[in-house]
This record gives sequence, structure tokens and C-alpha cells, in this order.
Amino acid sequence: MTAALGFSAAGVACGIKTDGELDLAVIVADDVVPAAGVFTSSTTAAPPVEVSRRHLEDGAARVVVVNSGCANAGTGIRGLDAAIATAESAASTYGCVPQDVLICSTGTIGPQLPVERLIKGLPRSLGRNLADGSTAAAAILTTDSVIKESVAEGDGWVVGGMAKGAGMVRPDMATMLAVLTTDAIVAAADLQRILTGAVDVTFNALNVDGCQSTNDTVLIMASGASGVAPSLSILEDAVTSVCADLAHQIAADAEGATRVVTIRVTGASDDAQARMLGRIIADSDLVRSSFYGGDPNWGRIFAALGTAGLAIEPAAIDIAYDGVGVAAAGVAAAHDAAALAQRLAAGDFAVEVNVGSGQGRAAVLTTDLTPEYVRFNGERS
Amino acid sequence: MTAALGFSAAGVACGIKTDGELDLAVIVADDVVPAAGVFTSSTTAAPPVEVSRRHLEDGAARVVVVNSGCANAGTGIRGLDAAIATAESAASTYGCVPQDVLICSTGTIGPQLPVERLIKGLPRSLGRNLADGSTAAAAILTTDSVIKESVAEGDGWVVGGMAKGAGMVRPDMATMLAVLTTDAIVAAADLQRILTGAVDVTFNALNVDGCQSTNDTVLIMASGASGVAPSLSILEDAVTSVCADLAHQIAADAEGATRVVTIRVTGASDDAQARMLGRIIADSDLVRSSFYGGDPNWGRIFAALGTAGLAIEPAAIDIAYDGVGVAAAGVAAAHDAAALAQRLAAGDFAVEVNVGSGQGRAAVLTTDLTPEYVRFNGERS
Repeated sequence: MTAALGFSAAGVACGIKTDGELDLAVIVADDVVPAAGVFTSSTTAAPPVEVSRRHLEDGAARVVVVNSGCANAGTGIRGLDAAIATAESAASTYGCVPQDVLICSTGTIGPQLPVERLIKGLPRSLGRNLADGSTAAAAILTTDSVIKESVAEGDGWVVGGMAKGAGMVRPDMATMLAVLTTDAIVAAADLQRILTGAVDVTFNALNVDGCQSTNDTVLIMASGASGVAPSLSILEDAVTSVCADLAHQIAADAEGATRVVTIRVTGASDDAQARMLGRIIADSDLVRSSFYGGDPNWGRIFAALGTAGLAIEPAAIDIAYDGVGVAAAGVAAAHDAAALAQRLAAGDFAVEVNVGSGQGRAAVLTTDLTPEYVRFNGERS
Repeated sequence: MTAALGFSAAGVACGIKTDGELDLAVIVADDVVPAAGVFTSSTTAAPPVEVSRRHLEDGAARVVVVNSGCANAGTGIRGLDAAIATAESAASTYGCVPQDVLICSTGTIGPQLPVERLIKGLPRSLGRNLADGSTAAAAILTTDSVIKESVAEGDGWVVGGMAKGAGMVRPDMATMLAVLTTDAIVAAADLQRILTGAVDVTFNALNVDGCQSTNDTVLIMASGASGVAPSLSILEDAVTSVCADLAHQIAADAEGATRVVTIRVTGASDDAQARMLGRIIADSDLVRSSFYGGDPNWGRIFAALGTAGLAIEPAAIDIAYDGVGVAAAGVAAAHDAAALAQRLAAGDFAVEVNVGSGQGRAAVLTTDLTPEYVRFNGERS
């Protein structure tokens, strides 16, 4: 994330997490720079989301503050005050106005943010701003098991990013935070358009447990420090590639998951319909349980498709696992079941679902639903 | 189910299930009688659903045939031929026209129905028609662990019913079959209206794993054999009571579930909004995992409410478990956590969610999501 020129980052431990672990990340641009964001569509969005949305109205920012260990959601007016105080503290530490500070929180919903600890700890990030972003990437994690970073290199410029995922991952970015930086020269309006497009086909095509959160945020700042203004389409490709890589890392590290499954839908009337069908398949506990068992149980996919309320013709449905057709024209297709079982036992795989003769296509990323996921999320928090 | 006068029922083993278990139930009225049905809204509905819908167009039936062991779904034209052949076989066995036969199938999606075995076995039900419906109730089960029957008594008339549930249980009756009988006198149009209303507040308010199926069907036949024509509202109460009892039995017997949780939503703008919110809560894997742990993790409910796309005011949300308030006005509420934990550890409980000052209310029944559910559904079928 500090691969892009013009940014530094640090992670510190403020005592928001009670075990002394890193719990606050600060990403600082050398100046106020163009910035953009995409946020949860939740109507119970957390106060930090509200504050960041407001602070991005001018398309500019200098500091991003992310705390883990507490979502500051379900915290009412007191939570909003805490979010505002966080932005003010960062502004005074880094010599900018609060409007130039963006904030994110992640962790348990409900408890009040221990904002006095955060404000006391935040200035300690000042002396530690490093060219290595990995301490910041570590400080934003909750139940993630590994840090998630990605870089895409352009011709004289780069896009970098970090993310946290774990549980509650689904379209519209449930409990998923990502912060990207680039040293390309780009205007704020273009940056917003590029980020929105990239999120749409990456983070919003990720569906781990169908649970959307109160805090989902993807932010990007563009320092322009490379001195290069790439074509917008090349920049969009780079941003999309970083988002896609981070999305895949999130899926691979999802709570209890043992495999990442890519659901490719083709033949839909348009891409939006294909995406919707992919999500419906990825939303099915029965389908995702069968992924866990490595069972090519296409009947469950066939059933899931029927719940979409769309005029899908059953006789037009073909379903394949890793290229091996198991259903054709809506009925079972002969195949080497033993060979396929062996193949699916190995790990990640793809499911290809064709629903007709349309041109619409989409890929949705999900994971298997496992006993470990339930055990993990069934523990008292 | 044979508590109502004018009906007999039998269960036989045809070899559709390979282990010699009962796999075919036949419910026969003494004559052609008023009948009604409610079916899955799936666009990949199974051939037997298509046939029964058509046969109910005249509001009359005499025979209901239910096979377990094969859903006859995802079976194309051959599956439709098999469903038609089943109705013809029952008609010739029981001396009526195929139009008076309703059929249901339940089991795995994909395999073709071994219709020749079914047709060979079906006539054996003729000599076994019994006043005791429990053999039929046993013959419709798939992964259910117990038979599900219910009776409501009116003044000189009764309503009886049987059901099968297990996995794939959710609004719009996913893989859920129920057959009801009554000896009350009632016209077909009234019977249909009563059944639709009863299903709406019972089976359609049941959400076990968010998976809707291809075969869901609820049927009712009214023999009039009691000679009594009760008021329609009293009859509706009785039908609703039987449906509610069967729905609760299905939830209690859901695959891997350790508890039934009732989600009561109040304060919504209308009942439909309350129902939608209840379903969204019951659709959340994170919420249902917390039910498994007996964890009053209201933040997950708060987050689920935010995903509805409705103008729910976070500051208006109150959440209680078994009457113990854990969140009030959108923020955590002080309560005796140890006492509540002990209470929730005990088994079934209710979650009360108030979202505002509206008059809309609804109750949705669900279960906990358990490691056992995933293990069960992850096995290769």
C-alpha cells in the first residue's frame, strides 16, 4: 500500500483490542490528494461510514484511519461523536482539517468505541510512518488469519492496496474494508468512477456468507507523485486487478472455508441477470454445503436457479464442474463420476452454469460452507 | 390425516428407495371432493407440480399420490411423462379419471423417477387402505427423523394433516410437502382461499435454510362426510392451526438443528414489511450461527436489518431475547448477561425485534445453523 509514491502508513496498538495487538492503522498522503470511496448500502450503516461519506463530498483526503476491534456500529449518537472525535484527533496529529480525514472501523457490532484510548494512541503513529505498509495491513485485521496486500504496476506508476475480510462477506462488501493508493495523476471524479466500476466486478461479486455488514468501505487516494497520468482505462484495469486480487485473498481466508469456488454464469439475458443468478447460487446453504463435500450436486444449483423469479427455461440449463458437464438441457448428463469426484476433492474449483442463449455473463466468487464456519460463528463473542 | 371421515390412506414400498423402506403414500377420498393446493413459486418446478396444478384447475380431486426417494425434478420431458403415467396408474387403480389425481414427489433432484416400479407398486396400496394414516405419513419422509401429523377438531368435524420437511425449508415452502383432509362441507373456491391464507402465515413464515425447492406442495381435500358446514372463519382457524403445528414439527426436525427460534417483529409499517424483516434475520448465517451458540449477539440482527433496503431508523430498533432487552433505541442495553446466557442455553427461544412505531407485526420460525447441518448436507448424495 506504500508501493505508491507519496504515502506512508503505520500500525499501532491503542488498547481497543484488549490483548495488546495492533488495532489502529493510519495511511497518510504527503498532501491533500484526490480520493474516492464506495460504502455499504446498509441502512444501519455505522457512524464512521456516515462521517467518511460526508468527508468525501469534496473528493479529497489526506489521512485514512482504520481501527479494528470495534465496529462502532449500533452505537447511536455516542458512536457518531466518537467517529467525529477520531477524525479531529487525526487532523490535529497530521496537520490537516477533519474534512480531509476518512475513517473506518471493524470489529464487533454493539459495544461503544473506546475513543479516549484511540485518541491517546493515534499520535504514536506519527513517529512510525513507514514505507512498509504491512504493519498497517496487520492493524486492520479482525478474525483474518493473514494480511492481505496487492500491487499492480503501471508504466511509471503503481496501484497498491490492503484489505480485511473474514466473516460477513458478500455483495455490497459486508464487513470488508480495503484501502488503495496510487501515485498516478487522476482527477477525483475519474477516480470515483474507476473505483465504483472496479468494486462492482470484484468485491461486489464476492459472496461468502450472504451477510452484509454495517461498515463495508473501499477507499482510494491518488497522490499523483509519479508524475504520470495514465489513460483512464489502463488505470481502471490496474485498480480492478488489485481489487480482484484482494477479493480472492479474502475468500481464501474466509472463516472456516476450505475452498474457493468460482461460479461462472453464461447465457443470461444480460450481465446483471447473470450476476444475480450467480449470487443466488452462492447464497444457497445447500449448494455451499455440497461444495464442502466436493459433491457435484447439480440438482441444488438447478433448484437455486428456480428461486430467482426469472423466466429461466429449465430445459436450457447446462451445469458443469471444472469443465465436466453433469447436466445438459436441464437433465442429468453422463460423465465419469469417479474422476470428477477425485478432481473436486483436490481443492478450489469452478462451476459453470449456462442458462440460455443470451450474451450475459458473470463470475461470482464464494467458498464452501463448513462445520468450522458454524463453530467459529457460534461461539459467544 | 384419516381422522376426517371419508378418507383412507396407505403407505407401501415400491423400491424407489433402494433400502426397502416405505416410499409411496396414497390418500383416497370416498368420492371426488372439493380440493385446493398451494405450490412452489420456483421457475424450475418439478413435473409433478406441473401436473397437480393442472389437475386442480377444476377444484376437485379424489386421490393424492406422494412418492419419496426421488423428486422427479430436473428430469425434463421424461420426468413429465413419468408424472402423467403416475396419475394414470392411480386413476385406473382407484376408478377415477387422471384429472382427479394429484401427485407429489420428494427426494433427490436430478435422477429420473423409476416410474415402472411405482406403477407396479401402486395397486398394492388398494388392499391396504387404512383408517390409520400413519403409514402414509411415514411413506412421505426423506431425511425426516419422525412422522409429522396434526389434527384440529371442530364441532362435529375435523381437519387432519401430515407433512414432511427436513432440509431446504423456507418461505414458499421449499421441499416441504403437506396433505390435509377435512370432513367439513366447504366449496372448492372457499377451500382454496382458506388454504392460501393458512399457508401464508405458517409454512411461508418458516425459514430454515433459505433454500427453496422445486417440489413444495400443500394440498387439502374436503369430503363433507361430517355433514357439517362450519363458518368459513372457524374452518380457516382449524386449517391454520394444523398448518402451524406441522410447520413447527418441521422446524423442530430440521436437519442438524438443535433449537427452534421464533423471530417476532413488531413496529413495522405493515405486516408484509414485518415478515420481510423477519425473513432477512432468519436468512443470515451469522445470526443463525449465533443461535447455535446461544449467544444474544444482537449486533448481527442489527446488521441484518440494515440490508433490507428499507428506511428502518437505527435509533428506533429494540431487540430482546425471551423478553430480556439487549438493545434499546439502537444501542446496547444493560441486562443480566449471565442469567440470559443460562436461559438461552436451555433450548428453544424467541427473539423480539421492534423496528419502530408502526402496527405491522409478524412471526417467522427458524432454527439454529449447526456444524451437523453442514456435515449432513456436505455428504455426497
